[in-house]
Amino acid sequence: MKSQIKLLGLTANHDLADAVAEELHLPLTQLDIKRFADGEIYERILESIRGDDIYVIAPIAEEVNDAFMEMMIVVDILRRSSAAKITLVIPYFGYARQDRKAKSREPITAKMVASLIEMNGVDRVVSMDFHAAQLQGFFNMPVDHLQAAPLLTDYFYSRNLLDDLVVVSPDHTGAGRARKFADLLAAPWGVVNDNVAMTNPESDDAIVGDVKGRRAIIVDDIVDTGYRVQMTAKALLANGATEVYVAATHPVLSGQAAENLAADDNIERCIFTDTVRVPEEKQSSKFTTLSVAPLFAEAINRIHENKQIDVLLRSKNKPEVNL
Amino acid sequence: MKSQIKLLGLTANHDLADAVAEELHLPLTQLDIKRFADGEIYERILESIRGDDIYVIAPIAEEVNDAFMEMMIVVDILRRSSAAKITLVIPYFGYARQDRKAKSREPITAKMVASLIEMNGVDRVVSMDFHAAQLQGFFNMPVDHLQAAPLLTDYFYSRNLLDDLVVVSPDHTGAGRARKFADLLAAPWGVVNDNVAMTNPESDDAIVGDVKGRRAIIVDDIVDTGYRVQMTAKALLANGATEVYVAATHPVLSGQAAENLAADDNIERCIFTDTVRVPEEKQSSKFTTLSVAPLFAEAINRIHENKQIDVLLRSKNKPEVNL
Amino acid sequence: MKSQIKLLGLTANHDLADAVAEELHLPLTQLDIKRFADGEIYERILESIRGDDIYVIAPIAEEVNDAFMEMMIVVDILRRSSAAKITLVIPYFGYARQDRKAKSREPITAKMVASLIEMNGVDRVVSMDFHAAQLQGFFNMPVDHLQAAPLLTDYFYSRNLLDDLVVVSPDHTGAGRARKFADLLAAPWGVVNDNVAMTNPESDDAIVGDVKGRRAIIVDDIVDTGYRVQMTAKALLANGATEVYVAATHPVLSGQAAENLAADDNIERCIFTDTVRVPEEKQSSKFTTLSVAPLFAEAINRIHENKQIDVLLRSKNKPEVNL
Amino acid sequence: MKSQIKLLGLTANHDLADAVAEELHLPLTQLDIKRFADGEIYERILESIRGDDIYVIAPIAEEVNDAFMEMMIVVDILRRSSAAKITLVIPYFGYARQDRKAKSREPITAKMVASLIEMNGVDRVVSMDFHAAQLQGFFNMPVDHLQAAPLLTDYFYSRNLLDDLVVVSPDHTGAGRARKFADLLAAPWGVVNDNVAMTNPESDDAIVGDVKGRRAIIVDDIVDTGYRVQMTAKALLANGATEVYVAATHPVLSGQAAENLAADDNIERCIFTDTVRVPEEKQSSKFTTLSVAPLFAEAINRIHENKQIDVLLRSKNKPEVNL
Amino acid sequence: MKSQIKLLGLTANHDLADAVAEELHLPLTQLDIKRFADGEIYERILESIRGDDIYVIAPIAEEVNDAFMEMMIVVDILRRSSAAKITLVIPYFGYARQDRKAKSREPITAKMVASLIEMNGVDRVVSMDFHAAQLQGFFNMPVDHLQAAPLLTDYFYSRNLLDDLVVVSPDHTGAGRARKFADLLAAPWGVVNDNVAMTNPESDDAIVGDVKGRRAIIVDDIVDTGYRVQMTAKALLANGATEVYVAATHPVLSGQAAENLAADDNIERCIFTDTVRVPEEKQSSKFTTLSVAPLFAEAINRIHENKQIDVLLRSKNKPEVNL
Amino acid sequence: MKSQIKLLGLTANHDLADAVAEELHLPLTQLDIKRFADGEIYERILESIRGDDIYVIAPIAEEVNDAFMEMMIVVDILRRSSAAKITLVIPYFGYARQDRKAKSREPITAKMVASLIEMNGVDRVVSMDFHAAQLQGFFNMPVDHLQAAPLLTDYFYSRNLLDDLVVVSPDHTGAGRARKFADLLAAPWGVVNDNVAMTNPESDDAIVGDVKGRRAIIVDDIVDTGYRVQMTAKALLANGATEVYVAATHPVLSGQAAENLAADDNIERCIFTDTVRVPEEKQSSKFTTLSVAPLFAEAINRIHENKQIDVLLRSKNKPEVNL
Repeated sequence: MKSQIKLLGLTANHDLADAVAEELHLPLTQLDIKRFADGEIYERILESIRGDDIYVIAPIAEEVNDAFMEMMIVVDILRRSSAAKITLVIPYFGYARQDRKAKSREPITAKMVASLIEMNGVDRVVSMDFHAAQLQGFFNMPVDHLQAAPLLTDYFYSRNLLDDLVVVSPDHTGAGRARKFADLLAAPWGVVNDNVAMTNPESDDAIVGDVKGRRAIIVDDIVDTGYRVQMTAKALLANGATEVYVAATHPVLSGQAAENLAADDNIERCIFTDTVRVPEEKQSSKFTTLSVAPLFAEAINRIHENKQIDVLLRSKNKPEVNL
Repeated sequence: MKSQIKLLGLTANHDLADAVAEELHLPLTQLDIKRFADGEIYERILESIRGDDIYVIAPIAEEVNDAFMEMMIVVDILRRSSAAKITLVIPYFGYARQDRKAKSREPITAKMVASLIEMNGVDRVVSMDFHAAQLQGFFNMPVDHLQAAPLLTDYFYSRNLLDDLVVVSPDHTGAGRARKFADLLAAPWGVVNDNVAMTNPESDDAIVGDVKGRRAIIVDDIVDTGYRVQMTAKALLANGATEVYVAATHPVLSGQAAENLAADDNIERCIFTDTVRVPEEKQSSKFTTLSVAPLFAEAINRIHENKQIDVLLRSKNKPEVNL
Repeated sequence: MKSQIKLLGLTANHDLADAVAEELHLPLTQLDIKRFADGEIYERILESIRGDDIYVIAPIAEEVNDAFMEMMIVVDILRRSSAAKITLVIPYFGYARQDRKAKSREPITAKMVASLIEMNGVDRVVSMDFHAAQLQGFFNMPVDHLQAAPLLTDYFYSRNLLDDLVVVSPDHTGAGRARKFADLLAAPWGVVNDNVAMTNPESDDAIVGDVKGRRAIIVDDIVDTGYRVQMTAKALLANGATEVYVAATHPVLSGQAAENLAADDNIERCIFTDTVRVPEEKQSSKFTTLSVAPLFAEAINRIHENKQIDVLLRSKNKPEVNL
Repeated sequence: MKSQIKLLGLTANHDLADAVAEELHLPLTQLDIKRFADGEIYERILESIRGDDIYVIAPIAEEVNDAFMEMMIVVDILRRSSAAKITLVIPYFGYARQDRKAKSREPITAKMVASLIEMNGVDRVVSMDFHAAQLQGFFNMPVDHLQAAPLLTDYFYSRNLLDDLVVVSPDHTGAGRARKFADLLAAPWGVVNDNVAMTNPESDDAIVGDVKGRRAIIVDDIVDTGYRVQMTAKALLANGATEVYVAATHPVLSGQAAENLAADDNIERCIFTDTVRVPEEKQSSKFTTLSVAPLFAEAINRIHENKQIDVLLRSKNKPEVNL
Repeated sequence: MKSQIKLLGLTANHDLADAVAEELHLPLTQLDIKRFADGEIYERILESIRGDDIYVIAPIAEEVNDAFMEMMIVVDILRRSSAAKITLVIPYFGYARQDRKAKSREPITAKMVASLIEMNGVDRVVSMDFHAAQLQGFFNMPVDHLQAAPLLTDYFYSRNLLDDLVVVSPDHTGAGRARKFADLLAAPWGVVNDNVAMTNPESDDAIVGDVKGRRAIIVDDIVDTGYRVQMTAKALLANGATEVYVAATHPVLSGQAAENLAADDNIERCIFTDTVRVPEEKQSSKFTTLSVAPLFAEAINRIHENKQIDVLLRSKNKPEVNL
Repeated sequence: MKSQIKLLGLTANHDLADAVAEELHLPLTQLDIKRFADGEIYERILESIRGDDIYVIAPIAEEVNDAFMEMMIVVDILRRSSAAKITLVIPYFGYARQDRKAKSREPITAKMVASLIEMNGVDRVVSMDFHAAQLQGFFNMPVDHLQAAPLLTDYFYSRNLLDDLVVVSPDHTGAGRARKFADLLAAPWGVVNDNVAMTNPESDDAIVGDVKGRRAIIVDDIVDTGYRVQMTAKALLANGATEVYVAATHPVLSGQAAENLAADDNIERCIFTDTVRVPEEKQSSKFTTLSVAPLFAEAINRIHENKQIDVLLRSKNKPEVNL
């Protein structure tokens, strides 16, 4: 008796859950979520899920701590209510940047979050573009780690923006990400020397690598306050780049980030995905949002059918590049 | 080599942490807590705590999910930084009311919270007046469960408000709490029939037990929206009580609760403790706040010294009553 | 390949296992249980159970410690012998009353029993009328918690014993149980003030609530020594009740309890279920036993078929009451 | 601050706990143990044990399942009440013989018992003469495994019963034990061929090895029903042994075993220890009981003082033999 | 949807994996195993195994530590890559002889190996002829423990070598193994007194039991250096045996063992199985190798089909003997 | 009673254990390590370590799998023999480079090794220069992560080799390491574009960043085959660097690496530490080895004394740089 597939959407980025459900031609399972007057979250699933194969679409985003608790509580329900398999689909994994101790007596919050998820009885996680690939190793269970690079680079292919490119990481931790992105576009790459660039972007030493006369694409996993991206754009132009694009998977866009980026004439265009929801009032004509819903829908389908998912990690433009 | 005692205070009800520290003549350990622009919490402990005996004063209150994460993250730091013992002092245990499945496909969030605390490497919990005593059993580790009843009843002893009392629980789940409170005051007790009282407080059937001609004390662990307390007060007066006091450990006072209680002429006075902080703007001349800081300070001291703490569970007025 | 359902019965209340098997038209799996001369239990399953969906009907009753070990040993066999799923059907959960620390340095034996069951590799528990609903939270795994109230109240419906009823809990911990029972019968409820009633049942203060001129039903989860029930009956009649019924799920009936209840003229009739076996010599014409076998059989069937079981928590007489 | 040593004795073989306490000049910690009418065990420790180094003297013997639960419940108390270290001193480890699957679908109850002890939060076990040495490996935690052979062999040294000895194991599983015993006495050894000996003890094939003209010592860990020992004695005499002694650590002596051995003229004398209590009415002038209390007392003392205990595994008569 | 069966072979004794695959008419799953220059092992599975029922044929043999790591790493892959079930087929379980502490401060390496396997997420182990049967209890999960005795004894039946046999264990720990082997051949048995035999094999005391005029079969689980077997052969002939066979499951044959046994005129013939691979250059005309591939293939098939496997524990020649 | 410090050295890099012991003026605890003929490791600790604070100096190096098992087995002994605390000092953490899945169906061996260590009962790890900082998060327990950069950069300070430096990472994953190293030397940094440099080192695109006219220091955590370092040196000189130094923490130097580096005229000098032992025959006058023994000795001392160790993460030349 094969178990049925069931999808659940939570509060954070519910739009994405709707989009994934639509792709799969499946309704979202009825779930009552409310907040008590004192801020405690209450959840109840309104239909039987006994023996079902459950996918909870649950970015740890927007109000990150509330989103995390909402996700954990629904897992408690699922475990106690005899779900056959519990898969958390976490398009954006909040706290991922706290993945190592940079100083003594700091936490490794990303690992704690991973451990708590694992201890709560989850069977598998599906996510996208972790801040560091090592985060997969914070889990002992299966993690299907999707990548937005094929989608984001396809933007440049489909608009034929391929000449004289250079791909730039806004700091050294993203050097590997920039290199892969550059491989997909057959372009050279560089790294921002952030010690210099954040304070003196016009300096020759702000960029490691040569960007002169090139269209630069700043590639990052997360755009949060946007400050690093803005300083990088300034440094790139000062060092001779002809124009600047931003390509980033997770548009967290905290505080005034959206307004600042929209107003920054140094930046030609920002290409984002919808792993994190950018509310209407933060949208700008300068932002392009590519949906990851088809990719997550296909991943869910393949997981449920026990089909391999590494085919989802190929770019149609450069299938030979290993992601 | 005996390990040193160290106290940490977090954001929620930091005033209580200060008060406990003062009682113990100890400084709070320096801790940097901040929120990133995207809402993620960052914490760092600023002095060495290697081999120390740590007490984190951490109510799960105010913004409950943020408070919970803040507490969990500091535990991650403590564990990784070689604390000898980690004791969480949780004066108010948020989510305690979600302690059983009242309907199918509900969570038991209180248990999940307890399990996550235990899995994170905590050695012991000290708390007060759990919503249900069974919550101690949600942990496998030592839980020191203090009680506010000696403090709250002492209010009535010290003001000689002892004649013609009746102690009333605002619903059946608090019957045991009311009975103990009544024992400490040598008074009879009753229970509100909440099915009736919430809709028709003037009914004869609203109260199980006889309150006529008596000064009624409504006893509860938590006052949250205050609605249940207000309806109970109305029912008590309608059934012949002469005046109504409220005695409750945890003044959560969500939304307009404080204003409503302050403005409710049916209620003579509310006696609270400071396990939860009532901000200045919610205070009223009708509220009396008794501090639990000396009790928690003494408990911490005794735990550190390996002395028994059941002596803290006695009322000086009625030492023979078993709490 | 769907796994087969298999039923096992142990020594305690083997009659109930037989009855459940008959309801399901399934044989009990052959199991050899014996005691060595030194009291050690030996068990062996005599047919292959590889890949099967196993239900062990195992009340922790009669000789509670022997019953517990017998149950644990069969789980060890099942785990080592590659059962696909192990469900313990525990109609009566011994040690459930030791669910909190009432005094310092007491155990929480109910939690320890739950933890040991969970650690031994059990996948799910099915039980009935826990002493406190919080006991569900002593487990992290699925617990299907059935209730006898629809069955017991149906007794009164089918005999049309519905007028002028009052439902009474013999102490404050059962107040919630009495309230639900009262809701199912559309009757008022009361609580015994056991401090008074156990020593002075004729006192006006022995009962919280009004029972005068009413037919009282004492409702409890367990009748053990029967003393509390007998004192309650005396108090009820002294306070004006017209007659007294006892309705209880688990007739433990230790020592002389059965004889005492049978001989007590204050009690009209006792309505029990067969979660615990009352041996022939303890039976009385005053006892009515309602079988839970159909309910457990239906639950097993629904769990095996992945159908929801909350339909079993409805009373046909009052389906709108939430249990 | 060094933690204090505390001793607890339970119901089974309380005499031994008294004797160990006397050896250590320490009182037993006050412990209330009772049985409810329904057979459930209730325990409460009557003095503070916070931060103490606890030794529970707890043979799994007499009523084995009751003894096991009593031991487990006291561990639950100790863990919840903040004991610093919990050491179970289990002089006789019931269920030790169920240490492997001899047939399909049997349990390995000894492992289950070990696992449950470990999961319950015990820090260390001290025991004596496991049925198989591999039982140590059933635990991951420290096990101090004492041996009675120096004590039992000293009986023969001190009475100068050393000439023409042969040591015989009543079956092949005890061959190693017999060999070590023989080494301590500088004697040859043999093994009973139990397939033959149990049905035809007079056969030449009943004994593997040569016993003619020798004083035979039957060595075993446990004497339970005594049947195996009695048949062995018969076989030994039939094969030419001159007289037969029995030396065994654990005198379980189920059923009529004591009477049978006392009345069996084939057996000269039985040398036992007091790991298991032989009640007065089972005693015989033919039995010699050597106390293990000094050995366990010394072990407890050395563990508490962090001194090595392998010195307790030497025979003063043959210190060069490795036990 | 029934999961597919997949077989993996590792480096150690890959021939056996091939033979099992051939018996099952299944290809081995493509697996890339290599060693980096620094000795680290790298593995990658080259085809999807999502949702499959995996059997890894992995003796802990040849380079035991490398073999162990290779096996553990492939389990890490399987767990992370969503295998449905992971069964380790370990024909020879290296480190099995370190199964107890013979002296203070020794490890119990066999238990550690078992625990690490269990912790790594393996679902079941299939093995053969553990050094001690108790090793099954080192696991909490299902262990299917096959036995080579039916295969090895069939050698003697099929060649009609059945008269005047005696089965001899080369030391006391193998007494049980020898007894069972003897039962299968309806022969008597004996044990080597290794204290004597290893230094003075011609002594009358070297053998416990009578071998005069008999064809002796030395039975062991493992032949490692061969020294013990050679000394036993010498002792047997000195004590009157007519000829000496060796029958052993696991031909580890370290160092010069193969050469020594082949050249030893005291030994007529060695009967081995192929749980451990004997390389071509160590082969001798005096060795007979019986393949366990059909037995393991049948076990894998039955496990996958949820059929009982105790039928594989019967000898066709003596089906009534319980193994 | 404070526990005593005890040091153990294993086979791999025993010289370093000796050096640490000498720094601490402590003897190494007597430990018997041997290999059986079949390759199994046997270990026994020859003196009591009950209640001691143990530090095992155990690089996972040389024969990595043997070294890992040797380390795990000694942990098994320590746990079973009642060590108070077990700290693994792992100067070089083998398998650290397998820290993420670069392709589907790869293992994350570094995490598996970390998990197995944690599950085996280790209390803390001390290591140096993990391949990725995220490896700390593979553990839940305390990890003290030392860094060689202060030692290695001090080489350049003490020889006044500070002018016109550029620090270069041989690939993008080491960009962060190079940046920190550059900060300590107040120099600029660059990254090798390994896609280009490994095949076409003379290309302008081989180096990201400007190295012309500068003395280049290639910085890496591990030098294994040396190939990457040699190609980087060639690229640096082709791109205008004046001379090339190599500074690396862990000189694994597999195969011909030592010979190749010694013979490579492009490389001026290699600065290594002794976390990994370079045997005499691989030494070269071109290699400088700086000992980490004082650093590890100080770390052990501080951990034992509960003093903070972040002071060990400062460079005396540039104390303001955060490592």
